[in-house]
Amino acid sequence: MNHTNSPTTWIRPEILQLTAYQVPDPGNAIKLDAMENPYHWDPPVIEQWLQVMKTATINRYPDPSARAVKQQLRTVMQVPETMGMILGNGSDELIQMLALTFNGNRRLLLAPEPSFAMYRLIAQMVGMQYVGVPLTTEDFQLDIFALLEAIDTHQPALIFLAYPNNPTGNAFGTADIETILEIAPGIVVIDEAYAPFSDHSFMSRLEDYPNLLLLRTVSKLGLAGLRLGLLIGAETWLAHIEKTRLPYNINMLTQLSAVFALQHYDMLIRQTQQIKTDREQLLQHLQQLPNVKVWPSQANFILFRVKDAKRTFEGLKQRGILIKNLHGSHPLLNNCLRVTVGTPVENQAFLETLVQVIGM
Amino acid sequence: MNHTNSPTTWIRPEILQLTAYQVPDPGNAIKLDAMENPYHWDPPVIEQWLQVMKTATINRYPDPSARAVKQQLRTVMQVPETMGMILGNGSDELIQMLALTFNGNRRLLLAPEPSFAMYRLIAQMVGMQYVGVPLTTEDFQLDIFALLEAIDTHQPALIFLAYPNNPTGNAFGTADIETILEIAPGIVVIDEAYAPFSDHSFMSRLEDYPNLLLLRTVSKLGLAGLRLGLLIGAETWLAHIEKTRLPYNINMLTQLSAVFALQHYDMLIRQTQQIKTDREQLLQHLQQLPNVKVWPSQANFILFRVKDAKRTFEGLKQRGILIKNLHGSHPLLNNCLRVTVGTPVENQAFLETLVQVIGM
Repeated sequence: MNHTNSPTTWIRPEILQLTAYQVPDPGNAIKLDAMENPYHWDPPVIEQWLQVMKTATINRYPDPSARAVKQQLRTVMQVPETMGMILGNGSDELIQMLALTFNGNRRLLLAPEPSFAMYRLIAQMVGMQYVGVPLTTEDFQLDIFALLEAIDTHQPALIFLAYPNNPTGNAFGTADIETILEIAPGIVVIDEAYAPFSDHSFMSRLEDYPNLLLLRTVSKLGLAGLRLGLLIGAETWLAHIEKTRLPYNINMLTQLSAVFALQHYDMLIRQTQQIKTDREQLLQHLQQLPNVKVWPSQANFILFRVKDAKRTFEGLKQRGILIKNLHGSHPLLNNCLRVTVGTPVENQAFLETLVQVIGM
Repeated sequence: MNHTNSPTTWIRPEILQLTAYQVPDPGNAIKLDAMENPYHWDPPVIEQWLQVMKTATINRYPDPSARAVKQQLRTVMQVPETMGMILGNGSDELIQMLALTFNGNRRLLLAPEPSFAMYRLIAQMVGMQYVGVPLTTEDFQLDIFALLEAIDTHQPALIFLAYPNNPTGNAFGTADIETILEIAPGIVVIDEAYAPFSDHSFMSRLEDYPNLLLLRTVSKLGLAGLRLGLLIGAETWLAHIEKTRLPYNINMLTQLSAVFALQHYDMLIRQTQQIKTDREQLLQHLQQLPNVKVWPSQANFILFRVKDAKRTFEGLKQRGILIKNLHGSHPLLNNCLRVTVGTPVENQAFLETLVQVIGM
């Protein structure tokens, strides 16, 4: 045998350099790290859902085009009738389809930073060039002059704008986004993962911008376990992106459960409204703490800065509360932490423990 | 706005040329086209499964590393302890991860043909070169001399061998596969999707060949609705391939259901044994038909040739029986059809209708 061949011979250099996306083991901690909706469904709703599950023919392949789910998503998310839709296993799979479709010789993906880490990671995975443009230092808004210059220089095939932005929580200025849509040479993807917690959306603007595609997910709405995302936009583009979708990508149980859950959309909306109310409470309490800088949020999490993020993160973790330490992930996020809005009890536990830890 | 940009400007040429993988709508037909196990679970097993489903916290993200499923798969599939495992949404997602990992400047994927269509399609999706090497004309065995020459010429990073092969149903000769493993400059992926119906496997040979990776799926075993595939091999390779796996790719309901179903592995094995028995019966009946050439099968489908595949396919379809027409998909498959082994009742209906249609 001649298998002295090592991975370095055969594995693509970008992959060799890549570090896998790490997800920490939460153990038994109060989990405020992953932007999950903390509420499950009412018991009678779970019983109804089980009756639907009972009809699943697990031995058969799922509907390859997931028609029922798409129809239900169109209704609850008010997708314009003229627009097409592609489903993915979370937004992640759709970002990958976009990168595969628009990749090519020196093609580039551009995004403001800090933002959702998968834009850069997926660009690297598929071998597409990536450029990040820093947000403004104080309030994490789009640095429109820096962006216009970067767009002019790099002519990106794809621009990703998380709206509201993760991990900063703010929604970028509408006028800035409109400017980018007007001057972008290629596609602008507005990622509205946190739409359930925001007053802003470009859903009704899709027809105004032929180069605009919209990403949504049901994860933050309360269905993170299902891994279901959707891409919305003109068929001119979607007909091609669809070719990079793997057959039967949305499994049968996700299809059945998503249709069912979206029939109970009012229950999910009640939950997200509760989270929005509790977010404002949590924000007010955080603002009263000395040596804590807090940013307002249009999402289901809050970004804040402390004197020593690592010590605060570890102190919380030791006391059974898991949040996200962003220190080291981007220069603009020095000593920043991100806490997901949980139940009122969880938020209270977090606040009390934070006071203990900071007071150490 | 400057959005006169058409898809032809921005979409990668390989994607523009690609035709999306088509799945026909079965309507109310007897479905013998997709290699599904026709048997669902016993009613008490379904009730037990619903109790497990009840524990799903759909509002939470699934276990990102799907540890319980992996452990269960290791046990029932007798995966060597020294080998690593990566899960995907069907084998398709794993084939895509492999292509993304090993793609690069002029890197090439090689497979015998006809074989599973996704090898070529996924290579095109990720922009990897592809070469198909025809099987032998009469019995669809590996043409080892043609393969050795093609491997020498093209130095493929990846070679895919479906074992048993789809759509021909046969298992390639062991000695030929060993030769390929020994001379391949890169990785050889043996795709054992149809292992539940075959007497052959390279699972116990993984330690003999450091460049061998194995693909399996639970789809043909009877869990097609779950979309769960697995890649098995040395961590030397898998640690890198894992970096192309999207976070939380296996959703919560698939994880819970797969663990449960594999705890009832004996039930699934009884079903696949029944299918194997019925396959032999179906084969014997087909062999007795005039003007029908049938090939033996190690899978849960049978390949056969008729005088006019299109007319036979359409005649069956009009009478409510959906099989797969392979005519036109590859020169070696002229006038060939593929029928999945169904229940005895379905097989009988297929046979009787086939006799009618051919006798027209």
